[in-house]
Amino acid sequence: MTDAYVQSLARGLAVLRAFDAEHVQMTLAEVARRTDLTRATARRFLHTLVELGYVLSEGGTFRLSPSVLSIGYAYLSGLSLPELAYPHLRELSARVGESSSMSVLAGDDIVYVARVPARRIMAVTINVGTTFPAFATSMGRVLLAGLPPAELERYLARQRPEAITDRTLTDAAQISERIEQARRCGWTLVDQELEIGLRSVAAPVVDAAGRTIAAINVSMRVGSPTASTDSISSSIVPRLREAALRIGHSYRAGGGALG
Amino acid sequence: MTDAYVQSLARGLAVLRAFDAEHVQMTLAEVARRTDLTRATARRFLHTLVELGYVLSEGGTFRLSPSVLSIGYAYLSGLSLPELAYPHLRELSARVGESSSMSVLAGDDIVYVARVPARRIMAVTINVGTTFPAFATSMGRVLLAGLPPAELERYLARQRPEAITDRTLTDAAQISERIEQARRCGWTLVDQELEIGLRSVAAPVVDAAGRTIAAINVSMRVGSPTASTDSISSSIVPRLREAALRIGHSYRAGGGALG
Repeated sequence: MTDAYVQSLARGLAVLRAFDAEHVQMTLAEVARRTDLTRATARRFLHTLVELGYVLSEGGTFRLSPSVLSIGYAYLSGLSLPELAYPHLRELSARVGESSSMSVLAGDDIVYVARVPARRIMAVTINVGTTFPAFATSMGRVLLAGLPPAELERYLARQRPEAITDRTLTDAAQISERIEQARRCGWTLVDQELEIGLRSVAAPVVDAAGRTIAAINVSMRVGSPTASTDSISSSIVPRLREAALRIGHSYRAGGGALG
Repeated sequence: MTDAYVQSLARGLAVLRAFDAEHVQMTLAEVARRTDLTRATARRFLHTLVELGYVLSEGGTFRLSPSVLSIGYAYLSGLSLPELAYPHLRELSARVGESSSMSVLAGDDIVYVARVPARRIMAVTINVGTTFPAFATSMGRVLLAGLPPAELERYLARQRPEAITDRTLTDAAQISERIEQARRCGWTLVDQELEIGLRSVAAPVVDAAGRTIAAINVSMRVGSPTASTDSISSSIVPRLREAALRIGHSYRAGGGALG
């Protein structure tokens, strides 16, 4: 029994995760519905999270408190890579005039660990901590291309990719081909598979042993001058790859550990 | 019993929080020691967190997985303020050549919700999610100055401030005076109270109703040209306050909700 699964912990974390951009503030009934818990059970978890300071209760509704940020902070604080990457991502964003980001694999998702938004207010809200399914993103395909072959095979075998837009590739053979292409070329482009209007190119960050430890990308709005085929191949991709190389060099020079 | 405290949830979150910059990777024994749990209990929680994908187990040691970032993300994704603030913080950092940040109050701590590091690799690792005791930081004093008087009184009454450096103010009357000064002047300076060598100035971000919704700061290394009294009063503070005003304006114009 010592290794028994603690269901209360799983449920409590599910309550925390039930809050998102579309559910910033919820009633008890909404939390119960989104977590498949009874109202009585949801109330106990919410009450505990309020006691611990992670949730705020106000006039019958609940929302996350800024203290929840401190849970993920411990991960970032042990990670030198985002810190090393930021100067290079900032320079990249300044040169191309678009947002750039870095992410790593977490299970079947990519998780953003650094982000430099473009000098304008974007409609898309992406922050450190944002997750997306790996198969439908440029950084995800680059990261998957960096997996050992057996691990990539297991990943592909367990996927049941669902379309996110009408451009999302869902055929395993096609996705596998794009991942293979990313590996061969050292970069990849994903066009509106995650969101209509969004085009993104990514490249791997590689450590001294040749392992892919992260991916960086530049994302562009379709229709903007930077997002044209010409601009991407002549300007964006060379600068993206240069930034990825420089981050890899800083990492090796710093002897940084990727937590 | 419906509102009973779920101890397993509290303990599981304590296990997650036990990992930090100084404890990136821990053995079972270390986790048990840092959380005051028995080894058997700590093992059950770690096992559950591994199952849920928040912790990685490797050769007898444990570390956080990038998935933990997704717990705090739900908070940021519901928050328009950091997104509105980033362009202004980036401009501020570029103009003064130093790091700038934004934070909000979470209990008795400040929590960083946005950060633009200076164009160099700093020794200090501060990220979104970093927390510090409010009383010893410039942003904290500005945020405390923005509390309703009764709330500030309760805050001051429950504090037992402990010195962090030999410069940290720990006398309640002195701290209260500095908070009052921050309110009167609209900005404040904290000199090496949080870390020797670190000097920081902060100003409040105010909503349409005149409430302080966040604080922004510029932090400098003592001895650098920007950190001189002259530079701070003639260059840093005016630019800091301008940025704070602009963020407040964007917020009001955008009708943004602070979670």
